[in-house]
Amino acid sequence: MISKKMKNALGGSSLIRAMFEEGHRLAGIYGPENVFDFSIGNPNVPAPERVKTAIKEILDEEDPVVLHGYMSNAGFEDVREAIAQDINKKYGLNLTFKNVVMAVGAGSGLQVVFRTILDPGDEVITLAPFFGPYRGYVADNGGKLVIVPTHIGTFQPDLAAIEAAITPNTKAVMINNPNNPTGVIYREDTIKGIAAVLDKKSEEYGHCIYLISDDPYRELVYDDVEVPYTLKYYKNTFVVYSYSKSLSLPGERIGYIAIHPEMEDAEDTVQCLAMATRDLGYTNAPALFQKVIAKCLNESVDVNVYKKNRDLLYNHLLSLGFECAKPEGAFYLFVKSMIPDDNAFCDAAKKHNILIVPGSFFGCPGYFRIAYCTSYAKIEKSLDAWTKLAKEFAK
Amino acid sequence: MISKKMKNALGGSSLIRAMFEEGHRLAGIYGPENVFDFSIGNPNVPAPERVKTAIKEILDEEDPVVLHGYMSNAGFEDVREAIAQDINKKYGLNLTFKNVVMAVGAGSGLQVVFRTILDPGDEVITLAPFFGPYRGYVADNGGKLVIVPTHIGTFQPDLAAIEAAITPNTKAVMINNPNNPTGVIYREDTIKGIAAVLDKKSEEYGHCIYLISDDPYRELVYDDVEVPYTLKYYKNTFVVYSYSKSLSLPGERIGYIAIHPEMEDAEDTVQCLAMATRDLGYTNAPALFQKVIAKCLNESVDVNVYKKNRDLLYNHLLSLGFECAKPEGAFYLFVKSMIPDDNAFCDAAKKHNILIVPGSFFGCPGYFRIAYCTSYAKIEKSLDAWTKLAKEFAK
Repeated sequence: MISKKMKNALGGSSLIRAMFEEGHRLAGIYGPENVFDFSIGNPNVPAPERVKTAIKEILDEEDPVVLHGYMSNAGFEDVREAIAQDINKKYGLNLTFKNVVMAVGAGSGLQVVFRTILDPGDEVITLAPFFGPYRGYVADNGGKLVIVPTHIGTFQPDLAAIEAAITPNTKAVMINNPNNPTGVIYREDTIKGIAAVLDKKSEEYGHCIYLISDDPYRELVYDDVEVPYTLKYYKNTFVVYSYSKSLSLPGERIGYIAIHPEMEDAEDTVQCLAMATRDLGYTNAPALFQKVIAKCLNESVDVNVYKKNRDLLYNHLLSLGFECAKPEGAFYLFVKSMIPDDNAFCDAAKKHNILIVPGSFFGCPGYFRIAYCTSYAKIEKSLDAWTKLAKEFAK
Repeated sequence: MISKKMKNALGGSSLIRAMFEEGHRLAGIYGPENVFDFSIGNPNVPAPERVKTAIKEILDEEDPVVLHGYMSNAGFEDVREAIAQDINKKYGLNLTFKNVVMAVGAGSGLQVVFRTILDPGDEVITLAPFFGPYRGYVADNGGKLVIVPTHIGTFQPDLAAIEAAITPNTKAVMINNPNNPTGVIYREDTIKGIAAVLDKKSEEYGHCIYLISDDPYRELVYDDVEVPYTLKYYKNTFVVYSYSKSLSLPGERIGYIAIHPEMEDAEDTVQCLAMATRDLGYTNAPALFQKVIAKCLNESVDVNVYKKNRDLLYNHLLSLGFECAKPEGAFYLFVKSMIPDDNAFCDAAKKHNILIVPGSFFGCPGYFRIAYCTSYAKIEKSLDAWTKLAKEFAK
C-alpha cells in the first residue's frame, strides 16, 4: 500500500508536472507543433558551448577515480573556492570555500537549508506569489509556512506586512529574486528594508531570524536592471543558487548554498548543511558538473532570446485586455485571469491547447503563470489561440 | 540558530564521514602515504573507459536543450526502457520503462521508496549488521526501524527471527545483498525463504508487506557466487540500485528503483516514486549520467583488484588471530573486535593511523568494518600497523 499522504497527493499537488505530462498527451493527439505548453520553466536556450568543451577537458585531464569519486559532502573544495572567489569578485565580499556547500539544484538546496535550521513548529515567512514547492520543503522539515502577500499588481514586498507577520517562532524569511512566478525584481531599497526589519526583530526576540534568498534567476535580467545580492545586506543570509537557468542545465541538478562568513555559528552551520546533504540521501552534488561549473563561472546564456519572447507575448496579451506586471527578469509572465476562478480559466485555456499554471499554485488565486522559455516561433503561433481565449471571456 | 536535532547530530551520527575527514587531518600530519584509511566505500578502481567515450559521444550527438533539460521526474524514458530490457535479459523478467524510476544514487532511491510507502508508525525490518544511514531514511519518513540480527558469525538471515518480528504494522523488510558491512551474500534459498515469510504474513494481515532490496554491490562478487535477483522471487519488491560501485561513479549520484510489473498498484506506485523524487528537491537523477548509463549497461569494473585486496588483508588478519566471515562480495571485511568495546578498539587503531568504523554504527557492536577499496600497495604497507595493533590486544 502506498502511504496515505502520497495517495492523496496523486493528481493533486503535482500541478506543474501534471501540466507537463498533459502537454505530452495533447502533443500526441494534435501534434507537438499545435500544443502551446507554457507550463514549465525548462529553458529553451542551449547551455553555452563552453560546457561541452569543459566536460571534454575535464575527462581528459582528471583521474577518473577522483573525478567521479566521493568527495566531502559539501563538495570539491577547489570548486567551492572558485565559486566563493567569483562571488567576492562580483559583489565585493570575503567568502572562502568554507562558506559554500554544493547542492543538487536549488530545490535540494532549500531542503538542506530547512533541515539545518528548522525545529518543529518554527515559522518560515514567504511572500506570495511564491514557488509552490516551498510548501512541501518547509513542511517536510517540521516548519510552518506563513504566507505574506506582496502588493498585488506590482508584486513588490510589503515591508509592514512582513514585520507584522514575524512572531517569536519565526525562523526565517524566504524571498525569490527575480521572482517566480511574476518576473519582478526586488530592488536594493527593498532588500535593505527587509534586512532592517530582520535586524530589529532578531534583536527584539533575542535570536537571529535568517534570510533565505532563492536566486536561480539572478542572471536572467532584462533592461539593465540590477538585482541586489542579498548577502551584502544581511549577515544571517543563505543564498540558494542553481545553474539550471543561468547555464541552462536544469536536468543536471547543480547549484550551491552560500552563507555570509559572519553568519551566526557559520562553521557549525556549514557542517550541518553538509550533513543534511548526506542525510537526505543526495550525499553530494553530481561530481562532474561541480568541476564543469568551476570552468564556466564566466559563461552565460543569451537572455535576449527570452527578452524577445517576453516582448512579443506581453504586448499581445496587453492588446487583448490582459493585465500583467511587466517582468524584468526570469522567464515568466504572471497575468490576471479574466475570471476570478484561475483554475477554470486555465481549463478553458487548455481547450485552445494553451497550457498555463493557475495562480493558486503560487499562493495567489485569480492569476495564471506563463513560462515563456519556449521558441519564438511557438509563441508567434500561439498568438491566435490567445486571441480566441480572450474573446471567449471578453466583457 | 541551527535546529536542535542538527546541533545534537554534530559530531555524532556522521561516523563514517567524520573518519573520512579525520583521514584528511592525519594525512596532513603524517603524510597521506602513512595513513591507512579504511573508513569509506569510495572505489579505487577507475570507471570503465567506455564512460568517458560515451560522454563525448552523447555531447556530440544530442541537442543540449534536451540533454541537459528537465525530463519526467522519473527520468528519460529511453534510459528507463534500456535498463528494463537489461534486467529482462539478465534475469528473465518482463519490465518496461514503466517499472523503472531513475534515482540520485541508492541513498536517494531509499528516501524516495520510504516516502512513497510509509505512513507514520509503519515498521521497516532490516537485518543487522546493516548500513547505518537506514536509520535516518526510515525515521525521516515517519517509520520505525526494527532491527533483526542475522546469525552472528555467518551473518546470514535468520528466517524465524524475521517472521517473529513481523507485526500488523510491518510495511517492509529491507535487505542489502551483497551486504555492507559484512560482504556476505544471501543465497537463492534464503531469498525464497524471505519471500515465503512475506507471502504468508501479507496474507495473514491482509495487506502487502514490501521487500526492499538495496543492491549497489550486486556486481562486486568473487569466486563465481551467484547473487539472486530479488524481483524474481517476490512481486512486491523494490530493487534500489546504484552505479556507484559497479561503474565506480559514486560522486555522480546515479542509480534507479525497479519494481516488479505485477507489484500491487504498480502504476500509482511509480507515479508516487516520481513525485517523491520531485518533492525531496532532487527533481530528477542527473541528466547526462542517465544517458551515460544507457550506453554502459554491458560495462563493468575489474573486481579482481578488490579480490586481491581482500585476500591479502583477510589472510593477514586471520594470521593475527582476528575472526572474520570471508566476504564473497562488496569490498568490506567485518571483523570481530579484540575487545568488546568496538569504539575503543577503533580509537586504538587510530593510534596506528588505521581508520576503521565501529560495528555499532551498523547495529552490531563488538565488530569493526574495513573498506578495502584502496590500493594494494597501501594495504601491503598497512600490514605492519595491523600486526602492531593485534599485539597490543594479544591475550
